Order: sequence, then C-alpha cells, then structure tokens
Amino acid sequence: MSKRIAGPEIERLIQLLAKVPGLGPRSARRAALHLIKKKEQLFAPLSLAMGEALQKVRVCSTCGNVDTVDPCTICSDVRRDPATLIVVEDVSDLWALERAGAMNVRYHVLGGTLNPLDGVGPDDLNIAGLISRVAEGGISEVILAVNATVEGQATAHYITDQLSGLEVKVTRLAHGVPVGGELDYLDEGTLTAAIKSRTTF
Amino acid sequence: MSKRIAGPEIERLIQLLAKVPGLGPRSARRAALHLIKKKEQLFAPLSLAMGEALQKVRVCSTCGNVDTVDPCTICSDVRRDPATLIVVEDVSDLWALERAGAMNVRYHVLGGTLNPLDGVGPDDLNIAGLISRVAEGGISEVILAVNATVEGQATAHYITDQLSGLEVKVTRLAHGVPVGGELDYLDEGTLTAAIKSRTTF
Ligand SMILES: [Zn+2]
Ligand SMILES: [Zn+2]
Repeated sequence: MSKRIAGPEIERLIQLLAKVPGLGPRSARRAALHLIKKKEQLFAPLSLAMGEALQKVRVCSTCGNVDTVDPCTICSDVRRDPATLIVVEDVSDLWALERAGAMNVRYHVLGGTLNPLDGVGPDDLNIAGLISRVAEGGISEVILAVNATVEGQATAHYITDQLSGLEVKVTRLAHGVPVGGELDYLDEGTLTAAIKSRTTF
Repeated sequence: MSKRIAGPEIERLIQLLAKVPGLGPRSARRAALHLIKKKEQLFAPLSLAMGEALQKVRVCSTCGNVDTVDPCTICSDVRRDPATLIVVEDVSDLWALERAGAMNVRYHVLGGTLNPLDGVGPDDLNIAGLISRVAEGGISEVILAVNATVEGQATAHYITDQLSGLEVKVTRLAHGVPVGGELDYLDEGTLTAAIKSRTTF
C-alpha cells in the first residue's frame, strides 16, 4: 500500500485523474498539483465546466453523436445535405471529419466495429439504426468512413450487405487513409482528400 | 475560428482540459469523449472529486505543502523526527520524497528557486519562513533537497548563507541526482540512495 501523502480528497482526485486517457499515475499527480496551484484560473473553472457538461451531455437518438441537445446540433442543422450520410465508428471520427470540414452532411455513429473475438456482434453496434434511417428514404449515398483496419473493413462489408436491398449508393473513403491507421490521428488535408476521392464499395 | 462541433458545455470542457499538463487540444478531445462514454464510472466521480478537492484544498501555513488540513498531515504527524527538515523547491518534490519513504521527517517548500533573470528574488520564495522555523529552535539539520540545476544550487547557497548564524547543520543530497535532473522524475531507489549519502554543504 502506498503512503498517504495528502488529504483523502486530493488522493481521490489524483486516483481518478490517472484514469483519464493521456494521463497516468505520475502525470495525474502533476496535473492535480497544477490545478491546485492555478486554483482560480483553471481548477475552479474546470470543476464548474465538468459539472455542467456532466449534467447536460446526451447521446443523439438519431445518429449517436454526443451533444447537449437531442437531436444533436448536426442532425437538426437544416443547411446540411440530407441525402448523404457518413458512417463512422466513433464520435471522435465524426469530430475529426467535422474539423476537416470535408462535407456538409450528417453522420451515423456505429459505436465500434464488428469483432467476433471480443464478442462484438451486429447487435452491439448501432447498425439497425442505420438501416432504418436509410429505409425511411431520402438518403441517396452512404459513405463508410470506417478505420482502415481489419475490423473496420469487415464492418464495412457487413453494412454493405445489409444495405444491398435498399436504393442507396454505398461508398468508402479513398485510399489515402494509411493502412492500419485511425481517422482521428490524420491531418485535415488527408481526410479531405480521402473523402473527395471516395470510391464505390 | 474553428467549427463548433458539440454543445457549448462540451466545447468549454475540452478547452479547459487542454490546459491541464499532460493533455493538449487533441488529447483533451479524447479525454472529454472518454469521460462522456464512462459517464457513471469516471465522469461523475471525477466531477465530484474535483468539486470536493477544490473546496477543501489549502496550503500549509507551516511548510507550504498542499493538503486538506492546515497544518498539513505531515506537519502534525508527531511520529516524525522534529529535528530534521528537508527543504524542497516544489510540493511535487515533497511528494516524490514521501513516495521514496527515504526519511520520516518534515519539509519546507520554497515554491521555486532564485532566478534573477525571471525576477524571482528571495522575497518571492518561502525562505523567510524557513529561517524563522529554524530560528525557533529544535531543528538540528536542514537537508537542501533542491534540484541539481544552476538555479537550485544558487538557491541552496543563498539559504546556507542565511542559516550560517544559526545552530544548524546544513546538508545537501549526495551526488546521485543526475546533473540538470529534476527530483520528481527520479526513481525511488536513486532518491533514497541520494538522501542516505547526503554531504555537508
Ligand atoms: Zn445526431
Ligand atoms: Zn505542513
């Protein structure tokens, strides 16, 4: 058992900060100390922002994006082309594509990829929601913007099969996404180029 | 201006997380998404822990440590040897020495090092507090556990001068601390060895 250094509230803060991606036990201690030192400038505003975000955040029942409104800002944006849907694995991919500003359309977040070894099947992903959105009509193209991984490509194939009975063109991102790479780490130029030269799946 | 991706409360959270040491803009987005996904397991407990730590944290008026009580847990621990004081630059160094468990004594946190170029003089550090603690009597040894940097060593010299009129032995950490290195990054074995073979300043 490690020695108790500071009060239990500080220890608890460090313990939980260490679970935030990007921080480990050591950087959690540094982060906690920094917050304590910048009490008024950073700690208090961050604590307030966390409480407010925690209370207001919700998952969009249409697309799976996270926002503070449902339907999300993107789904209710009437200036977006309603005929094209970009399918992504994760909200982080949606955010990456939005930052790239590649297309002014709407999204569908799967929440992962098919992965039989990890027991992730079609029912564990937001695939049924995608099929019914397309079945409702009005969508002429579905762009599968999944990661260029084995699981991502297998998921793309599965979705293409599921959509094959419907009147919709299914495309995928152009090669340009590095094999094995993850969308969220790509620069905006590469993302934009890949989406512009997308090919039929 | 960057495109607004999510609700203002989420954007604000990302913006503030990006200011936490160890996180940048990209990892702040990942961290925020992770928190949102682990809402019950991590986001809610972290938000609560932040609020509680924020409310209870204080600086020890005796030694400069941060804790939820004043005097801090270490200063009021009667099982610690009251005759030895370890002087450190920062609370992170105090925490590193406590983790190493090198000595069961008390500390004095300077809050930085003398740095004339940056306009940091003796009055900007907690040096006067150290002198009066020693002048009060009962302390037979002051261990200067400052970083092995130019500023750290200059600060050690200055403090040694200030303490020269008082009945106290002033020691410093043994070589073993890499030149130019910072205490907080050292492993516990090196820290313990360095403190055990400390030499007279
Ligand atoms: Zn939505
Ligand atoms: Zn104290």
